[in-house]
Amino acid sequence: MPHIAAPEGVPGIVGLMHFRPETAAPLNALAEVLLRGPSTLSRGERELIASFVSTRNDCTFCSSAHSAFAAAQLEDGKAVTKAVCSDYKNAPVSEKLKTLLAIAEQVQRGGKNVTTALIASARAAGATDIEIHDAVLIAAAFCMYNRYVDGLAATTPTDPAVYEGIATMIVKDGYTSTTPR
Amino acid sequence: MPHIAAPEGVPGIVGLMHFRPETAAPLNALAEVLLRGPSTLSRGERELIASFVSTRNDCTFCSSAHSAFAAAQLEDGKAVTKAVCSDYKNAPVSEKLKTLLAIAEQVQRGGKNVTTALIASARAAGATDIEIHDAVLIAAAFCMYNRYVDGLAATTPTDPAVYEGIATMIVKDGYTSTTPR
Repeated sequence: MPHIAAPEGVPGIVGLMHFRPETAAPLNALAEVLLRGPSTLSRGERELIASFVSTRNDCTFCSSAHSAFAAAQLEDGKAVTKAVCSDYKNAPVSEKLKTLLAIAEQVQRGGKNVTTALIASARAAGATDIEIHDAVLIAAAFCMYNRYVDGLAATTPTDPAVYEGIATMIVKDGYTSTTPR
Repeated sequence: MPHIAAPEGVPGIVGLMHFRPETAAPLNALAEVLLRGPSTLSRGERELIASFVSTRNDCTFCSSAHSAFAAAQLEDGKAVTKAVCSDYKNAPVSEKLKTLLAIAEQVQRGGKNVTTALIASARAAGATDIEIHDAVLIAAAFCMYNRYVDGLAATTPTDPAVYEGIATMIVKDGYTSTTPR
């Protein structure tokens, strides 16, 4: 049960957003541009970074949700997502994405852990400055979303079908569609 | 020197925002509503939470900036801000704000550390659900902003006058005024 009077029947961050629509709008706008806006990283790849960081932060709602969103937008999605969250260095993803996940891994621990060597290895694998920027900001943003959801004890469904249902909605209509009017 | 080709002469997060205006807009919109929008917590009190969390995250730019923003908007601001960042339990702020800082302290460590006992003590000190929500989200958001700034090694001025100059601008025109057009 949430710590505040958010609607208990509305799962996760969406319930919190119904409690406080004023902050829901920029939170969804940020997710939309970072995870679905124009980018040389695919939507599935960006959702992998989100689910990877959420798993590291032990946030069950975000980890389950963004794993479902990644799985829905990648070939062999379920297996790839599971592999990235448990052992990304040996996961079937590009070398470039592995270097971005290595950066995200350090951002999750704290921004100062991102070294010039990590940045250099991302560039050597073909990552652009915008891709590096976005990987850092996606990882940082999920350090916010995860704390927001767990800090307020948002409702966390246990049925995987719930997350697959949300995935269908997000893939079709995007994050801003969940902002309360 | 920043890890990416952000303009070196523009300090901190503002330099990163000039590199990527698409994400600057929602980042500033979130700061504006959380720290300056309508609220029963004063702007100075909300900046205290921001500077407190940024100090815990060891982010020199954000800690210096939001300490200056708090100091500019509170009576005896410099002393109060310094006291909150070093030992909030004995700082000259309200009991209610102390309970919100105690919640922010746990959010910084990870959302699951926020207990029902901490929430109950905030309510007993007169905090509303919206104030509790906003304290959690401010703390969570600075776990993002801090990682964004340090993860990309944003330019961090050492001269306190720079932060006081930014404070004058933010207090007058708000966060959205810094979004590149």
